[in-house]
This record gives sequence, C-alpha cells and structure tokens, in this order.
Amino acid sequence: MRLSKSFVKTLRDASKDEIAKNGVLLSRAGYIHKGLAGVYDYLPLGLKVIENIKGVIREELNALGCEEVSMSALQNPEPWEATGRFSDQEVDIWFKTELASGGLLGLAPTHEEPMIEMLKTYVSSYKDLPLYIYQFQTKFRNELRAKSGIMRGREFLMKDLYSFHTSEEDLDKFYSVVEKAYTKIFDRLGLGADTYETFASGGIFAKFSHEYQTLLPVGEDTIYYNADKSLVFNKEVFNDAVLAEFGASQADFTEAKAAEVGNIFKLKFKYTEPLGLNYTDDQNEVKTVYMGCYGIGVSRVMGVIAEKFADDKGLVWPEAVAPFKYYLVGIGAEGTTKAEELYKGRENEILFDDRDARPGEKFADSELMGIPYRIVVSDKTLSSGKAELTSRATGETKLVDLSGLFV
Amino acid sequence: MRLSKSFVKTLRDASKDEIAKNGVLLSRAGYIHKGLAGVYDYLPLGLKVIENIKGVIREELNALGCEEVSMSALQNPEPWEATGRFSDQEVDIWFKTELASGGLLGLAPTHEEPMIEMLKTYVSSYKDLPLYIYQFQTKFRNELRAKSGIMRGREFLMKDLYSFHTSEEDLDKFYSVVEKAYTKIFDRLGLGADTYETFASGGIFAKFSHEYQTLLPVGEDTIYYNADKSLVFNKEVFNDAVLAEFGASQADFTEAKAAEVGNIFKLKFKYTEPLGLNYTDDQNEVKTVYMGCYGIGVSRVMGVIAEKFADDKGLVWPEAVAPFKYYLVGIGAEGTTKAEELYKGRENEILFDDRDARPGEKFADSELMGIPYRIVVSDKTLSSGKAELTSRATGETKLVDLSGLFV
Repeated sequence: MRLSKSFVKTLRDASKDEIAKNGVLLSRAGYIHKGLAGVYDYLPLGLKVIENIKGVIREELNALGCEEVSMSALQNPEPWEATGRFSDQEVDIWFKTELASGGLLGLAPTHEEPMIEMLKTYVSSYKDLPLYIYQFQTKFRNELRAKSGIMRGREFLMKDLYSFHTSEEDLDKFYSVVEKAYTKIFDRLGLGADTYETFASGGIFAKFSHEYQTLLPVGEDTIYYNADKSLVFNKEVFNDAVLAEFGASQADFTEAKAAEVGNIFKLKFKYTEPLGLNYTDDQNEVKTVYMGCYGIGVSRVMGVIAEKFADDKGLVWPEAVAPFKYYLVGIGAEGTTKAEELYKGRENEILFDDRDARPGEKFADSELMGIPYRIVVSDKTLSSGKAELTSRATGETKLVDLSGLFV
Repeated sequence: MRLSKSFVKTLRDASKDEIAKNGVLLSRAGYIHKGLAGVYDYLPLGLKVIENIKGVIREELNALGCEEVSMSALQNPEPWEATGRFSDQEVDIWFKTELASGGLLGLAPTHEEPMIEMLKTYVSSYKDLPLYIYQFQTKFRNELRAKSGIMRGREFLMKDLYSFHTSEEDLDKFYSVVEKAYTKIFDRLGLGADTYETFASGGIFAKFSHEYQTLLPVGEDTIYYNADKSLVFNKEVFNDAVLAEFGASQADFTEAKAAEVGNIFKLKFKYTEPLGLNYTDDQNEVKTVYMGCYGIGVSRVMGVIAEKFADDKGLVWPEAVAPFKYYLVGIGAEGTTKAEELYKGRENEILFDDRDARPGEKFADSELMGIPYRIVVSDKTLSSGKAELTSRATGETKLVDLSGLFV
C-alpha cells in the first residue's frame, strides 16, 4: 500500500475523550476512528489487523472441523424469552428496537439462543452430532460506560463457537481440543507468553468455566497465579474452599491485573433444554443435546495487543497481526528509485511511505504505526548494495544485502 | 467440504411464510436460515457465496485504488440531524435504539453521513483528494413488509463506495471509471447479459442517477429499454420530456420488470455542504468537497442470482459465485475409494457428498444446491478410466478421462 494514495494519516492527538492507551494510539496511528464512546470504525490498517486475527482463528478452528456461518444482529425475542434472557433485569446490556410493523427486537449481545433455534431445523438424530459451528459477528452491548478504547465496545467483533454433543464425555473431549486450539491461537497472535487459562465461575451448571486472561496493568480482571503459572484463578473463585480442591493455599499465589481475551464454557443443557434442542438416540429415545460455547473477542484482542506491546514511540505489532510486515522509505534520488523497485510485487507486504515528507517524519510514523520492520534505502546504503533494516520490537538496526532483504 | 461432516441438509420445505422463490430455494438448499421476515442467517454454503461476491467486487474496486474500511452500525444522530436525515419523516426506515447512558442512536441504513464525518479528520487540503473509500457493511432498514427473501432485507449486506473530489470534472471522471467497473463486476457475477445501466431520478442535485437493473419477472422496478438496450429508463423518469432530451420516443421502448442490484449517484455537495467537509485549494481558498456514492446490494445480488437462474430442480450458480465448483459422488466400492482420492487436496473446490445415502438422493441434492459441475465416479465409469461430468446449467453429461477432469 502506498501511503501517498491513502486517506489515512497519523494524528498528533486522539479525540479528547479518548482515555485508554489502545484507543489513543490506534486513533493517532490511523487504525480506528471513534464514532461514539465504545463504537469505532476500522480504517484500512485497522481492518487488516482485524482480518489477520480472524485469519489465525479461522485456520485453527477449521482444522478442528468447525463450520463458519454468519448470523443476524436483529433478534426475534421468542427464543430469548424461553431462556429468560430477553428481560432487561436478567441481561442488562440489551439494545432493543421496534419493528415498524410492530414488535420489539433485540440486537444480539451473543448468539446461543438463535444458534440453538436454527439447529432445531438441522438436528434430529444422534447421527447429526457432534457439530461445531462458529462465526465472526458484530455484537452489541449497551454498556453504561465505555472508556477502554476497543477493549470494551458497545459494538464489537467477536468469534463465537458453539459445539453440540450427545454426551458429556464428548463435550469434555471437544472442550479439551478447543483448550489446545486456544493456546495455539494466542501463541500465534503473539500473546501466548502472558495469556493464561484461568479458572472462573461456572455459573449454576458447571463448577468452573475457563477464561483466557492476558496480563495487562489496565485489565479489568484480577487473577492469581502460582509460581509456574500452571494454576490460575479469577478473583471471583479465588477462595480457600476452591483452593483446597486443588491442594493449594493463597500464599502460593501472586495477584495481577489481566484482560479477558477468550472464554470457554460447558453450557450442557442450560439453553438447549428450555429451547428444546433434542435428538433421538440409537435406542430411539429423545434426549437433550449437550452444548459448549467458546468465545474470543476479536476487536478486544486487537486492543489488548495494542495496549500490551506499545512503547513510548507508539504501537508494536507482532508479525502475525501487523497490517504490513515492512515499512519502506526511500531517501535521495537513487533511494527513491530503488524503493519503487523493491515495492513492486510486494504491495501486500509493504507499507510504502512514498509521501513527499522528511525522513524523520516517516521514521516517526513507522514507529507510531508499529510496523514490524522498517526498510530504508538511501544513496548511502545503496553505495554498498545494502538496505537498512530496523526491527520495531527491538529497535535493532542492521545493514542487509538487498538480495537477502526479504528472505 | 464433506457433506457428512456438515450440519447443513437440504430441506423438503422452507418455512411456511417464505414466499419468494429465492428465499424458498436458498432455505431448502441449506444456504440461509430465516430468523425473522427480512432477517437471515447465512449458513456455510451461503456465506461462501457472499464471500465470492465480495471477492469479485473487492478485486475490481481495489484495482481502481479504492480503500476498504469497516464503519459502525450504531450511529450518533448528530451528523444525520445536520443533513435532515435522522427524522423519521424524512427517512422512514430507521431502526432506532436507546443508549443505557441516555440518548437515541440509529442503526445505519447507509453511511454517507458517518463517512463524511470521519473524513473531516483526514481531509483538509486539495492534496488529500481525490479519495475512494468503500466497505462491505450490514445495513438495517425497518421495512414495513419483507417478503422478497434476501432480495429486500431488514438486515442486509451492502458494498458502499464513496468518492471525494475537488472538482465536478474529477467526480465525473471517476464516476465513468466506476460505471466501467460495475459493468465488469456484473459480468463476472454472471448477470452481465441481463443487467442494464438505467437512468433513474437524480433527486434535486443531479438530473439523473444510474441504477443497475437486472431483468427479473419478480423485480420491484419497471424499466423501459430500446432495441439495442443502449438506452434504459426507470419508470420514474420515463416520460416525454426526458425522452425528448435523448431524441427518443416512447414507442421505441419495451417495458420489463427488473431488480435493482446497484446504483451510482453524483451527490456533489448534497451532504458535504451541510456537514462542512471542506478543503483548502491551491489558492488557499476554502471549498466544499464533491462527493459521489456507489452501492451494490451484496446479499440482494445473491438473491437475484438465485432467483434468476433457478429451474424446477433448484438453484443454478454461475461458477464465479458458486460455493464449490464440483459436487462429487462416488458409487460402489471402487467409486467410493476413487472419490476419496479425487477429493484429497481439492477440499475448497469440491463439495463431497460422502453421506450414506442413495445416489438418487445425492443427485437431487446436487441439483437443488446448484453446484456447477457434478462428478460421478462409479465402478462402471472407472472400468474405462473415466468419470461422469454433468453441467448443472445445461444438464449436459459426458464421460471424461480422470486425468483431464480438473483441467
């Protein structure tokens, strides 16, 4: 992409009501634009980051045999009323709206109910199960406050996977498979080292659910982890009774702030029973389908990555999610010509800063935008057939032979 | 994709309130699921069709230097109030909702206002123009009735492109470029032969806008075309005064029903002036930005294609939009083994009907689903080293050497 042809510019300041670091930096670097608190537009670079995160998740889920769908935002209240979740007392973050032809609709804050409702058309026999179905879909949550940038949105992108089984054993087995996939996903997204599978409240249908918590000073959650981080608890279940079950005591744990980037939950019959998602088993008996759900906050992950790796110069993207791998600057007549040559055929890998601007300005923007590698070709570097390659993460600069630049 | 592993099945009947042919066939063939009237979920095959249509549009727009973004559904009323379009009297298809923290929001039925509002951050000088920005985004329109399947949704997917210019000449020039791109897009989508650029009402800021109308008996529009279809008018502008301008008379035209699949519009200052999207020209004078907008109804296009090409056996997809190019059936022991072999490495091209079902059922499903080519390998075809290849569109069947099957 040529920066000279893009409408995106870095900004000196984010909008004045933007408080969160991720919101400020992503706005200043031209990734997002705030429509209203908790509601953002994704500009070309931001959309690429989102698509990269989706790509990693999609690959890992497809490898498990999961099927991708796209469900609606507008929601018929009926199935939600059957589970008791349409009530504003029960779920206090609904956006609701009126049909012109009469009747109230909701804007989906999650999709368990419509997913089950839809499957009633497709599941009738044990032969139809198990099923694993996911989507990337915009969710709407009417938060009273939204001050965390894209880490907590009123409108945000989520990956939600639902699994359906004939037995608790089969649910358990798939749940373990998803646990491994989630570890792999967060590893690939660059968050692996500081993201822990965390015991959290399981509600009334299971002792625990699991959250994936990424260490982050501004995270909304408090977690407790032991020395080797093999045992991590959300504050809500960190008590002596729970610890006793694991043969541990409070003294073994360290407190930290963290942001929830994913959660997985054995719902069992919680929603399938009131909605009547049944199947006939091989003895011709009608039984209720077991269900699990598995979320990853896609736009939140982008916010957490932005927040976590940023330094005083700006964003620092891991390669897997960066909108471009390289930021290219040509200096001087020869450098400019060579930069054009290098760019050709690599338009999807290179953010080419071909603007009529001073090198210092370009360098500052490359840092603010957080592109993993900056390539500078100047008359000077070219005199020895080389380019200057700088790593955004480490700041390390080296001269590299042009022939080995993209190897 | 293996059909045995998918939750999708063909259905004998669509939901009883589904009237439109596209809605009935797409539901029966397992492409979509109706949430409520005019609101649909896209199942794995349906999502693939949507992604294929998006892919064609994206390629053609990127080739023009257009940039892709993704804007929010939730809308701050302010910019819409500035153009007069937040009023339900002016725009009668709004879905509106309340913020928990107070204040009314709208669900975007289109995105001119937020796009302009966002660009006020990025455009200040003539050097920032022209710009071409598009998105694929869910739109919400509170239609009183929604009985046309996915051809007229309350929630639907649209591609909207907006262009911004310093002069009317530059707007005109880009408008012509988009006209050519649209022709190419509808050609590639298989609709070219029956899709005409049509003069339609231009509102108060331009004499005409252009619609892209696809001939369709159940289309909502009436158009009039001359013998070589070089001159086509929407009924709304088909009168003697307009025809006189083109040196034509009513007798030269044939009436037909059609469905609007795209529209392009020179908005000029219509929205940029009230919203104050200005730039400073090279004489340092402040001027208003010229604007154009260019829509394609992505989910509607899917509905129109479904509706237009279907026959009494089911859907018939053009290759460019089909979810899979081939539908594969193995019959008998050898045929089943060979089918597994053929499938391997072609999982993205082949819908493999590996279900435990009779060949006749598989053939009927392949026809209902509308996959362009059916491949059958049986012990009989294999005895001469061949497979049977059947075109869904023509019904033509031939025996093809296995070695030449995918050439």
